[in-house]
This record gives sequence, structure tokens and C-alpha cells, in this order.
Amino acid sequence: MTIDTQVISRNRLFGGEQRVLEHESGALGCTMRLSAYLPPRALAGERCSVLIYLSGLTCTEQNVTTKAGAQRACADHGVVFICPDTSPRGEDVADDEGWDLGQGAGFYLTATRSPWAKHYAMDRYVMDEVLAIADTLTPGDAVSAGRVGITGHSMGGHGAITLGLKHAERFASISALAPILQPMDVPWGEKAFRAYLGDERDAWAAYDSRALVRSGKTHPYEILIDQGSGDSFLDKHLACDDFKRACDEAGQAFRYRLQNGYDHSYYFVASFIADHVEHHARSVG
Amino acid sequence: MTIDTQVISRNRLFGGEQRVLEHESGALGCTMRLSAYLPPRALAGERCSVLIYLSGLTCTEQNVTTKAGAQRACADHGVVFICPDTSPRGEDVADDEGWDLGQGAGFYLTATRSPWAKHYAMDRYVMDEVLAIADTLTPGDAVSAGRVGITGHSMGGHGAITLGLKHAERFASISALAPILQPMDVPWGEKAFRAYLGDERDAWAAYDSRALVRSGKTHPYEILIDQGSGDSFLDKHLACDDFKRACDEAGQAFRYRLQNGYDHSYYFVASFIADHVEHHARSVG
Repeated sequence: MTIDTQVISRNRLFGGEQRVLEHESGALGCTMRLSAYLPPRALAGERCSVLIYLSGLTCTEQNVTTKAGAQRACADHGVVFICPDTSPRGEDVADDEGWDLGQGAGFYLTATRSPWAKHYAMDRYVMDEVLAIADTLTPGDAVSAGRVGITGHSMGGHGAITLGLKHAERFASISALAPILQPMDVPWGEKAFRAYLGDERDAWAAYDSRALVRSGKTHPYEILIDQGSGDSFLDKHLACDDFKRACDEAGQAFRYRLQNGYDHSYYFVASFIADHVEHHARSVG
Repeated sequence: MTIDTQVISRNRLFGGEQRVLEHESGALGCTMRLSAYLPPRALAGERCSVLIYLSGLTCTEQNVTTKAGAQRACADHGVVFICPDTSPRGEDVADDEGWDLGQGAGFYLTATRSPWAKHYAMDRYVMDEVLAIADTLTPGDAVSAGRVGITGHSMGGHGAITLGLKHAERFASISALAPILQPMDVPWGEKAFRAYLGDERDAWAAYDSRALVRSGKTHPYEILIDQGSGDSFLDKHLACDDFKRACDEAGQAFRYRLQNGYDHSYYFVASFIADHVEHHARSVG
């Protein structure tokens, strides 16, 4: 698949180039933006890998691009860093008054209920279009050769782990910061799944990391997960004991780190994103 | 001088703590905010130094705090990083429709003309109040012992160099990113100086880095200056040939780096701020 992209902005950064791209999305039926950081090695045409970063509720591609400082580690490790938006966008795209549903809250799933089904399919968008765009930006056939990792924050951590487990053959590494690991049983997830997927919980399990591991979906490489002990969403929305137990039972290797005193903000992401870039870089050698 | 500060927010960051503080300013006659990053060593009560960062036009304390990633280098080097706002603030503080005059554009000077003279005195604010607040946050008498550096971006680079030269005994290091070095002769500076100081150019020279060096104001430590060759303001507002010549004639050591392709944005600041933190750290040993 070839997707025409238009460069909205270019900024020199850590010896590489930060771009914002715009394109028409077939999967979503609207115009989308994403950011792409090309490290110095990519600009020189040398072999690189790709790390897809999925953002959390309310974010666009801008939040992580301007606040996390991930590009520094990507410059060091030769990683192309791709950050899509969190939902379809536009005036004719269904939305909700709440910040945790509709635009800014796509939950990386394919909606089946009205009015969401018309545009909301962020999982297909990431797998088909974001990866295709990443491939055109990265020297050395990174995507077809499987040198792609996926990570994300909060709702985006949920997206990273569910997509990584469901398409284990496409991704060399999976990691997440403060992910929603058991969305079927927490308020953010329940509200979104009910709206996008309807009341039948059977349909929800395809988008629940814990349920996916229980059903046998695993990844050969250790999954890195960071959470902050001072995160005000930790108990209510980011519960993970069942997920960890499921990983143990399924033999899924994971490294879970509870970071003392950190909250849910981009200060937390900035503090640990370099470890996630390194985790990815190790997986592709 | 003791200033009562109220902590507006605290976030764990790189093992230290990012705070935003609010206080009543006597110098400015209004309520002000500033950010303070305390590195792990400061939280442990160990000796630290202070780096004051002055921001550019339109910024508050938030821009550099959320976008530059300077705190990572400050954590490594044990530097308390203090970022004040760029002007007095509030509904009863004079303002202008332009983004390059009034609130967000204090130019680190003491205004003498109406309506600005009532509140605008950012140079006094930094020297008297920001340094006093920094002292209370930093273990080891950093301010009274002279372990304080000053840096900044654009208008804030102008502030850093003018204050650093005029109070050389108070600062161990001076540096700047894309500073306005000859404000008397560039449109941003001329507009601001005419409004704040009146038409007499003699009064402007006290706030012009080139004029200060020519008048014998120098600093014993090398001044580090970065500019971006792709900065769209470079020719019109950031001219520096006269400043460099004045430094050569006065024996002022400086290191000037024209960074290839970088623009005026925080991506430029993020790319090089670690070098400025290190420049400061070296000056205090």
C-alpha cells in the first residue's frame, strides 16, 4: 500500500529531522496527521528500525513529539519514531462531550456501533497505514523485515500491547508506559467498549490485553511495562494483577517496573521513554 | 530577602522533582509563577548549583519546562533549574496587542515610560526575587557562594547575557541560545526599547549586550552562544557580528556555534540545552 503524505513541518532535532505529515486515511475516512522523527542515520540512508508510539486519551501526535524527548534516544539508537494521532478527526467525525470517548479517544479498535462505526478503526489504521508510511520513511526495509517495535502511554499502552500481541509476527518488541491492561473491567474501558462495541462483553475481549494473553496470544520477546506509584489513575483504571498472572501462566516474559512517586503525566513518560527506545533497539540487534 | 512561595504543582521527573511555584512579586507588583527543577542531589540535601533560564517572546515558565528536556542534564550534573516567566502578568498589568510588546515580552529591563513603568522591571525581578527563591530551594548556599549560572533563549538569551555582564560577580557562567545580542539595532529591540525606555538611545545601551561589552562589561568565564543557521529570525533580529567584534576587542572569551539547519523552535533548544547545562556545571567545578 502506498499512501501519499504531505509534509506539514520539518524541524532539525538532535542531528535528525522532526516531521509532521498529513494524509488521507482510507481506514478512517478522514484526513490524519502523524509525526515522524528521522534520526541522523536515517537521513544518511543507513539501516534503521521503527518504533511506533501510540498516545493516550486527549492527545494528538503533538504531545509526545514536543514533550517526551524520545528523539534523543532515537538519534542515539538509529530508530525512526512514528507517532499517530489517537482517533479519526474532523467536523463530520462522530464525537462526544466527554474527553474519554470520541475524538482523542479511539482506543485502537474497530467500532461496530453507530455512530462510531463509520470512522473509528484505529487498529486497522495503525496496522495498514501507519506501518506503510513508516516503511517509506525508513531505509533498509525495516517494516517488511520486522524491525518494528510498538509502545505507548495509557490508552496508547493498551493499544501497543493489544496490537503487539495480535500481530506478534509484525513486531520485534512491545512495551508500554502506564497502560490500560484490563480495559474490560475499568471505567475508561467499559465506557468506551460499550459505546464502540455494544453491550456484548464477548466482543470486548479482542481488545483486552489480559484476555488476549489468556487466549494464548503471546510474544517471544519480553514486554517492558512501567507504571508510576504516584499515578492517580493507578488503582481505578490501570489495574494489572490479572494481566501479570495471565502472563505468568502463559509463559509470556515481561518486566514490570513500579516507578516510585511518578504520576501519569508526560514528565513520567520523559523520565523513562529512553529505556523503552533501548528495549526496542535491543530487540532488533 | 525572603519570599513566600506557594507550590502549584509537583511532578517526579528524572529522579528529581519538577515544581511550579507562585508568589507575590514586590519588584513587579503582581502575582508571578516560576518553575523549579530539583535534581536528585538537591532532594538528598547535597550541594548543588543553580542555572537560571530566561525564556523568549510569548513564553511563560511552561514552554521550557515541558519542551526542552533540560532536566535530564540537570539531574546528571546536580543543577537546580529555575525558569521565571517573561513579564509581569495580570489584568491590571499594561499590555499590547502585539506579541512582541507587553505581557510575554518584558525584555528583562526596568521600564521608565508610561504605562509600562508601573509593573515592568524584569531585570530587578530576576536579580532580587528569582535568585532569592532559588537560594531557598538549593542546598549548599549556591547563590551566596556564586554557584549560579544564567542562560536563555532569544529574548531570554538577551536577558541572560545583559544580566550576566552587568552582574558578573553574581554569576559563574553565562550562555545563550539564539540571543538578541544587538537589540538597539533590530526591529524587536527597537520597538520594545522605544516603548519601555523612550526615544533616547543613550538609555537603551544599558540593555544591549554589544554596547555593554564595548563599555567594558566583561565576564571572566567563556560565554557559550548557539544559533541555528536555519533560524528565520537570524538576519533580521539576531545579528551578532558587532557583538563578536566587541568581545574580541575587549578580550571577552566566547564560543560561538552556528548549528547547521536548526531553526528558532524548542526543537533547537532541546538539541543543545544539555551542552549549556554542562557549560554551567564546568564553571562551578
